[in-house]
Order: sequence, then C-alpha cells, then structure tokens
Amino acid sequence: MRKVKVYITLKEGVLDPQGKAVQNSLESLEFGGVKDVRVGKYMELMIEDSKDIDKEVDQMCDKLLANPVIEDYSYTIEEVV
Amino acid sequence: MRKVKVYITLKEGVLDPQGKAVQNSLESLEFGGVKDVRVGKYMELMIEDSKDIDKEVDQMCDKLLANPVIEDYSYTIEEVV
Repeated sequence: MRKVKVYITLKEGVLDPQGKAVQNSLESLEFGGVKDVRVGKYMELMIEDSKDIDKEVDQMCDKLLANPVIEDYSYTIEEVV
Repeated sequence: MRKVKVYITLKEGVLDPQGKAVQNSLESLEFGGVKDVRVGKYMELMIEDSKDIDKEVDQMCDKLLANPVIEDYSYTIEEVV
C-alpha cells in the first residue's frame, strides 16, 4: 500500500480570489505582515502498490484531481508499513 | 520574507464526503486500486520575517485558517531569497 500526497495549486498568474479573501481576513485580525496568500488543495490517497504507480497518479491528476488549464499539481509517494 | 506552506486536513475519524466523492469518481474512471481519499487544504503564505513567526502562524491557523474542532494543521517555513 502507498500513501500519495497530492498538492494542487493555481498556476502562476491565475487570479486567486479565495487567497485574497484569506489575506484580507488575516489583515482584519491584525496579522499585518502577510504579503500574499495562495489557496490550493491537498489530498491524501491510499493506493494499492503497482509497478507504474507514478503513471497512474499522473493520470488521476490529469483526468480528475487537477484542472490542467488553471492548476499545477505535484505529489509524493510514501510506502505504508 | 518567508514562504509558509500550510497543510490542513480533517482529523482522524471525521467523515470526509468530499474524499468519498473523489474516490468514487476515480473508481468510475477505472482506477481500481484507490482504497481511501482524504481531501484537505493547502495554502502558501508570503509573510514578512519576524522573530516569533512560528507563534504568528499558529495563531493564524487557530483563528482563521483551520477549524480546530474538525481539522488538524501543519506547516513548513522557508526563507525566500
């Protein structure tokens, strides 16, 4: 079994209204030093081991988990003992 | 300037309907080996350097970024050159 951690973020230059909203809220809570906030998705998948698990995870990201037009993704794969 | 990467996940035992929906969708796309999916949030914050930045980030998470009742958070802090 493998634990795959997937990080999905908006591409550089894509407007992030959610990030702006979080930034404004932090400022209203007196956290003045916050210069930028980008909000993305984080997923943990438990996947049965397979010889081309990298290819499988790439396909999952391309087909479902990430929107290739506006999002980038990266992932790490850990063995689960 | 520091780049803070914040990972927010649902606590163990908290039902994750979004994760279930993603898992079902992956199965319908013929990815059979997916045993569990947990969906969370990932944020990147650019924050001015300060001597107790850890304390500040903890407060941001406790007050706004994470719901302490159902979510856990973790973060890493990197120097931005």
